[in-house]
Amino acid sequence: MNTLALTFLGTASAYPTPSRCVSCTALSHDEGIWLFDCGEGAQVQLMKSPLKPGKISKIFITHLHGDHSFGLPGLLCTVSQNSLRTEPLEIYGPVGLRHFVCTNLALSRADVCFDFIVHELETIPEQQPLDAEEWPLQVPSSVPFHPCEREGRLIRPDDNLIWHLYSDPKLTVKAVWVKHRVPSFTFVVQESPKSGKLDASKLKAMGVPPGPLYAKLKAGQAISLENGQMVSPSEVVGPSIPGRTVVVSGDSCDSSELNKVARGATVLVHEATLENSLWEQCVQNGHSTPEMTATLAKELDVKMLVITHVSQRYKTRAAELKEGDRSVQILLDEALEILPADKVILAEDFAVYTVPQQPPGGSASNMT
Amino acid sequence: MNTLALTFLGTASAYPTPSRCVSCTALSHDEGIWLFDCGEGAQVQLMKSPLKPGKISKIFITHLHGDHSFGLPGLLCTVSQNSLRTEPLEIYGPVGLRHFVCTNLALSRADVCFDFIVHELETIPEQQPLDAEEWPLQVPSSVPFHPCEREGRLIRPDDNLIWHLYSDPKLTVKAVWVKHRVPSFTFVVQESPKSGKLDASKLKAMGVPPGPLYAKLKAGQAISLENGQMVSPSEVVGPSIPGRTVVVSGDSCDSSELNKVARGATVLVHEATLENSLWEQCVQNGHSTPEMTATLAKELDVKMLVITHVSQRYKTRAAELKEGDRSVQILLDEALEILPADKVILAEDFAVYTVPQQPPGGSASNMT
Ligand SMILES: [Zn+2]
Ligand SMILES: [Zn+2]
Ligand SMILES: [Zn+2]
Ligand SMILES: [Zn+2]
Repeated sequence: MNTLALTFLGTASAYPTPSRCVSCTALSHDEGIWLFDCGEGAQVQLMKSPLKPGKISKIFITHLHGDHSFGLPGLLCTVSQNSLRTEPLEIYGPVGLRHFVCTNLALSRADVCFDFIVHELETIPEQQPLDAEEWPLQVPSSVPFHPCEREGRLIRPDDNLIWHLYSDPKLTVKAVWVKHRVPSFTFVVQESPKSGKLDASKLKAMGVPPGPLYAKLKAGQAISLENGQMVSPSEVVGPSIPGRTVVVSGDSCDSSELNKVARGATVLVHEATLENSLWEQCVQNGHSTPEMTATLAKELDVKMLVITHVSQRYKTRAAELKEGDRSVQILLDEALEILPADKVILAEDFAVYTVPQQPPGGSASNMT
Repeated sequence: MNTLALTFLGTASAYPTPSRCVSCTALSHDEGIWLFDCGEGAQVQLMKSPLKPGKISKIFITHLHGDHSFGLPGLLCTVSQNSLRTEPLEIYGPVGLRHFVCTNLALSRADVCFDFIVHELETIPEQQPLDAEEWPLQVPSSVPFHPCEREGRLIRPDDNLIWHLYSDPKLTVKAVWVKHRVPSFTFVVQESPKSGKLDASKLKAMGVPPGPLYAKLKAGQAISLENGQMVSPSEVVGPSIPGRTVVVSGDSCDSSELNKVARGATVLVHEATLENSLWEQCVQNGHSTPEMTATLAKELDVKMLVITHVSQRYKTRAAELKEGDRSVQILLDEALEILPADKVILAEDFAVYTVPQQPPGGSASNMT
């Protein structure tokens, strides 16, 4: 696992405009592309980026608000058009996601030409909307399977309220719940540590022949040579490289559950929808201010905070500001009151953040 | 009713790209804006146009393919943000549309702040997909009402297979079915004829006093003056102005039902997805070639044909053509083999066609 990069395809909240798309973040790695959220227009943003839609292998949906999900049905149809996929596409998100995906694909009779699986995260009472009594969550008894669908899992949280989504030798994905107006999750992608480098010249001097013994040492086992000499890994293997942790948050006015899984993370992508002075309105809508988000990042001791999901009332820095317009710079400035300049970035559509190897330099220069 | 103008917000088939959006056509008139189809990205296209989303009063969906419907949930949420609407928004489309709208709004818990009504057009056996047996149409027994929803009608066709959707003193909307891979409709908007102008100087010379007598004459009634003289409308009222007819078609490989309702129409907006040489593939997918569409327009004797819903394989004329790229001009050229140059236009995103008063000049110069 070498490359690990975030591409911000949509950084706005609520609704898309010509200058900024709604939520969609791509994580590129050696095995493919994982998408986090898929607001309306995500497929066109992908086309505008250098990313190849055919490489998308997993999609994670933080919550079912339209600005995070309405682009998913269209994206599935389009990805389908030029996919030579053999492995099924796996989609993860809160209970209700299957109903959303399958209803849209069935009613539009979308002929996706690859298999897909929807894994649903069971929600907990704390996540229920406040108005769930007057307006019950729509949970149909059963949703017919799409012809291309394979059955997914219902993922329940463990006793510590951590949802375990996925694990392979290189990457693990967990989720915790965050507080919002509807069930919302934050995803934590953890890279496995890599063993250190072998000191080839030292090995040669010690008379260790290249081959299986090298692999044993790299795997942490001691070996004995033909002359009876013992070689321990610590003598010839450099320090192991810790894995990187990438956290992509759903909309949230309280992400304290992240303390369980994201301390010291390499990068935290978190919303900050409205400026500090609009705190009341912001929290009422289940969102965070820059102060809240920066304080969280500081408490978690993350190496880098990327602020996203900003209100369309703030104009991009790139766009020309008319009189009365407010720049997104306000949000960054408010975060900078709490975090140093090399620990926070404001995402713009199409910005790319290369996740640095640990221990990271912690420099904002990874953002291009 | 004076203004009647079509704005083409999305003119591509299948999926959106950065250069062309999927189906959405706006009809502006004195009472508001009516949308026909609502592909993904329609709300952003609206923002890019001079049209005011808050003025949308009706939305007609020809069929439930994603390139005609996936933008509707997002559009409803956004229109909601700055709507001072008092009348409910009315949405018309094939059976299944309510399920589509309500499931998307319920799962995303979209808090639209105006009332809306979904009227569904009952489909007929001829419209069923060929694969309906292996993959049944998803028709849930009941779909919960959205808190802002008012009950709509199930619109059945009359004995002549014409669906009657709406009628007010100025405009009437009907639909007929067209052949496609899924149930698809074409909408016919018929403007009422306007009575002719009163000849004010002649009335004065005849001694008719302005007031109620003028109204009677304009309404087609004869009057008698105090001196016993009879005045018939034909003496003082000019010829009535025929109403205009605007036809917006759904995807179709056979629109012959239009013979019942669209003969001599002022303007026909119809798809032509692929060029003539790809006829087989085109018809297999339920689409028309320029030859098919132009022949239809000629048979119907429409005053103007607007070709839309073109495959993304054809690049816009505006865009720079790279080697190997094919221009949409091909599609127009093929239609011009059948229709004269002043009777056919190729729609591009954001083009506006002002529907001329009848009898029309029939000039393409109405397109800007
Ligand atoms: Zn959001
Ligand atoms: Zn949200
Ligand atoms: Zn279509
Ligand atoms: Zn279609």
